[in-house]
Amino acid sequence: MRNILIIGAGKSSSYLIKYLLEKSQTENLKITIGDLNVDNAKKLTGNHPNTDVIHLDVFNAESRVAAIKQADIVISMLPARFHIEVAKDCITYKKNMVTASYVSPEMQALDEDAKANNLIFMNEIGVDPGIDHMSAMHVIDRIRDKGGKMILFESFTGGLVAPESDNNLWNYKFTWNPRNVVVAGQGGAAKFLQENQFKYIPYNRLFRRTEFLDVEGFGRFEGYANRDSLKYQEVYGLDNVKTLYRGTIRRVGFSRAWNAFVQLGMTDDSYTIDDSKNMSYRDFVNAFLPYSPTDSVELKFRHALKIDQDDMVWEKFVELDIFNDDKMVELDKATPAQILQKILMDSWTLDQEDKDMIVMYHKFGYELDGKKHQIDATMVTLGKDQTYTAMSKTVGLPVAIATLAILNGKIKTPGVQIPITKEVYTPILKELESHDVIFKEYEVPYLGYNPLSI
Amino acid sequence: MRNILIIGAGKSSSYLIKYLLEKSQTENLKITIGDLNVDNAKKLTGNHPNTDVIHLDVFNAESRVAAIKQADIVISMLPARFHIEVAKDCITYKKNMVTASYVSPEMQALDEDAKANNLIFMNEIGVDPGIDHMSAMHVIDRIRDKGGKMILFESFTGGLVAPESDNNLWNYKFTWNPRNVVVAGQGGAAKFLQENQFKYIPYNRLFRRTEFLDVEGFGRFEGYANRDSLKYQEVYGLDNVKTLYRGTIRRVGFSRAWNAFVQLGMTDDSYTIDDSKNMSYRDFVNAFLPYSPTDSVELKFRHALKIDQDDMVWEKFVELDIFNDDKMVELDKATPAQILQKILMDSWTLDQEDKDMIVMYHKFGYELDGKKHQIDATMVTLGKDQTYTAMSKTVGLPVAIATLAILNGKIKTPGVQIPITKEVYTPILKELESHDVIFKEYEVPYLGYNPLSI
Repeated sequence: MRNILIIGAGKSSSYLIKYLLEKSQTENLKITIGDLNVDNAKKLTGNHPNTDVIHLDVFNAESRVAAIKQADIVISMLPARFHIEVAKDCITYKKNMVTASYVSPEMQALDEDAKANNLIFMNEIGVDPGIDHMSAMHVIDRIRDKGGKMILFESFTGGLVAPESDNNLWNYKFTWNPRNVVVAGQGGAAKFLQENQFKYIPYNRLFRRTEFLDVEGFGRFEGYANRDSLKYQEVYGLDNVKTLYRGTIRRVGFSRAWNAFVQLGMTDDSYTIDDSKNMSYRDFVNAFLPYSPTDSVELKFRHALKIDQDDMVWEKFVELDIFNDDKMVELDKATPAQILQKILMDSWTLDQEDKDMIVMYHKFGYELDGKKHQIDATMVTLGKDQTYTAMSKTVGLPVAIATLAILNGKIKTPGVQIPITKEVYTPILKELESHDVIFKEYEVPYLGYNPLSI
Repeated sequence: MRNILIIGAGKSSSYLIKYLLEKSQTENLKITIGDLNVDNAKKLTGNHPNTDVIHLDVFNAESRVAAIKQADIVISMLPARFHIEVAKDCITYKKNMVTASYVSPEMQALDEDAKANNLIFMNEIGVDPGIDHMSAMHVIDRIRDKGGKMILFESFTGGLVAPESDNNLWNYKFTWNPRNVVVAGQGGAAKFLQENQFKYIPYNRLFRRTEFLDVEGFGRFEGYANRDSLKYQEVYGLDNVKTLYRGTIRRVGFSRAWNAFVQLGMTDDSYTIDDSKNMSYRDFVNAFLPYSPTDSVELKFRHALKIDQDDMVWEKFVELDIFNDDKMVELDKATPAQILQKILMDSWTLDQEDKDMIVMYHKFGYELDGKKHQIDATMVTLGKDQTYTAMSKTVGLPVAIATLAILNGKIKTPGVQIPITKEVYTPILKELESHDVIFKEYEVPYLGYNPLSI
């Protein structure tokens, strides 16, 4: 029996565990799951004979080391900042390791040690990062292999609510950490490349500079720029592209409405409001509007944001009940972002029967034989229920498939890495297809941003 | 002879030195000026027999201590962050000290030592902070002395160009550190009190939430909120006021136009632009606008900011020449704020014959005998030339007058302090009047923000 240790069995572990259990007989696997919450982990294993659920506190070195020593490979599904202790033990006890998280500088620093011990530390092998890397490099490598030269790459990902559960005016529910949604885009200008020009978008304009994305069978979406569009330029070998843009997907109209919160300062996470506990939702909104003894909060809000009476965006705010004077914030000394998050969670929390959806959209522009071409690739994955979500599927399956591929010696190259090589992405993307995680490709006219130069 | 040591003889020292030299015979004063730039300091003393200009590097402990030891009182006109070494020596050698800077935590920490040694460390005794404290407390104390209860305090200050030199469309020139003007308002939401409600304005709305101020003989101004409106609430004894607001004065229309730079991200000081050296002004503006192969930067700018063709604000941008494709940024790896500052300095640098202007506006609302009252107090000081500026006058004269008052035992209370007591402000405001720094007071109807409650 090969022993796979999974540390942390949170929301995104359901498909990971399901996949490995299904393979456990034919592949001779024992799955050990270590978590602080043993009961929750046991629900996911369903008393499968090839599993063992143990209580594990990652900060307790003794029990952590004991579990790692017995494993043949270690998967850390912990929050990213907790991986490093596990990773150091994996060096010490010579175990391969898999995570879905961004490579931290501390993790990167272990590269030499990993290589010296012939160990594979695979990271960023969830959905974003993860499937985005693999699906992008799959097309980029193919274009290069036939002699094409990449000139444009755009990549968008979004975690959304599935169409059948999409029943609010924002066409949005929280399918992941709500806090990340509320503070998205903060912390500096978004920087990207358009036709060889660096472009910068400050936070207060981010949600007004969107672009449309049409996905066959799912209609129109919009994308707003990530802060870090240039992050993988070198890694993907795209140093000479003219356009490089990475973004986040929402349904059309979300960003325009969200911008109201940005403009008024309601997403600010940098200061706390002293008496927030005793504020109503209406008081909270009013704190960002000028005082008036007579004008309503509604009219001041409309006036400040120049929202016409017949503008449908207005209904979005009414739907959130932000003008309610009876609903209390209740949070003590909270930041505006924390208060807004609470208000949104009233409306945007998934119901028990709701399904989620992951949408990915890549654009690849390239030159071949003196002509410009473009391939668009789209992927939509739908969740089944609140346990087997699209998020959990697209995060967990690549982790699971990679783990088995490492165990079986199909992925061989040692070192701290992300899934951008053919060796890694080819078998994983192929197997994902059999799980309905499928990219559709479209040959489209190259548009870029400069149609005159075609 | 009493020896006054002035450390640092920069732009704001001209009136300070002039005043002390004029008093040097009758008051038996020797003025020692220590600066890195001896020649510049000598220009300000004009070879007056009661002066001595010495080369002084504040970081050279030996020469610093030698100069301080010989002084009866020390004035530090250095940038605020350099005061502390001087202050520590003043404790050691038991010298009184005067600065025009905000009290830093390090300075405040010397309070006990200062008191134990019966030393006066007078700070914040320039114009803002300085004259604002004194002129505000003068009226507040008077209202209280006759039994009134403060309910509103608003205070605005601005350094502007004098009307006779006001010849650009922004009605603005740099009369102080240009950098502070470019990054003004950044770093967090402005917080203030309006009718007992805390109000918050994020940076991106700061320049759209102005209020008008009419000053007799000088027309209309506008004020935008400072970040720190509540800073002196306790110090001024205003814990129970309903409205507390501090702001910065500009000519009407400045803020609306400035907001364009804020909206586009051109005032951002948090990142650098790699190839800024080779950018034209036009390239710089274009970096904050979407790419287009055909549309002009001008039209994209207008469209992004929704500036109609016949909106006069447009001429303000044209006047700054920001669309010029020949003028180069030249600064290497500069932040947007640094580049914008350079562009503005082309247009907003004072000419040799230009005069500056300081404008201050206070509003005091109070209840007395069951009625609400309001006093508005305004002060305008004009500069004479580029040496004897209004800024230098309103910063330097209070410093000089306070220094002499301390030397003559008229200000007696020891400790690290700011000028908010009658002992301090009464003689200083009185003497400032003889130098034409005069507050005009107006009894006006109390408006507050709630006329219905009058």
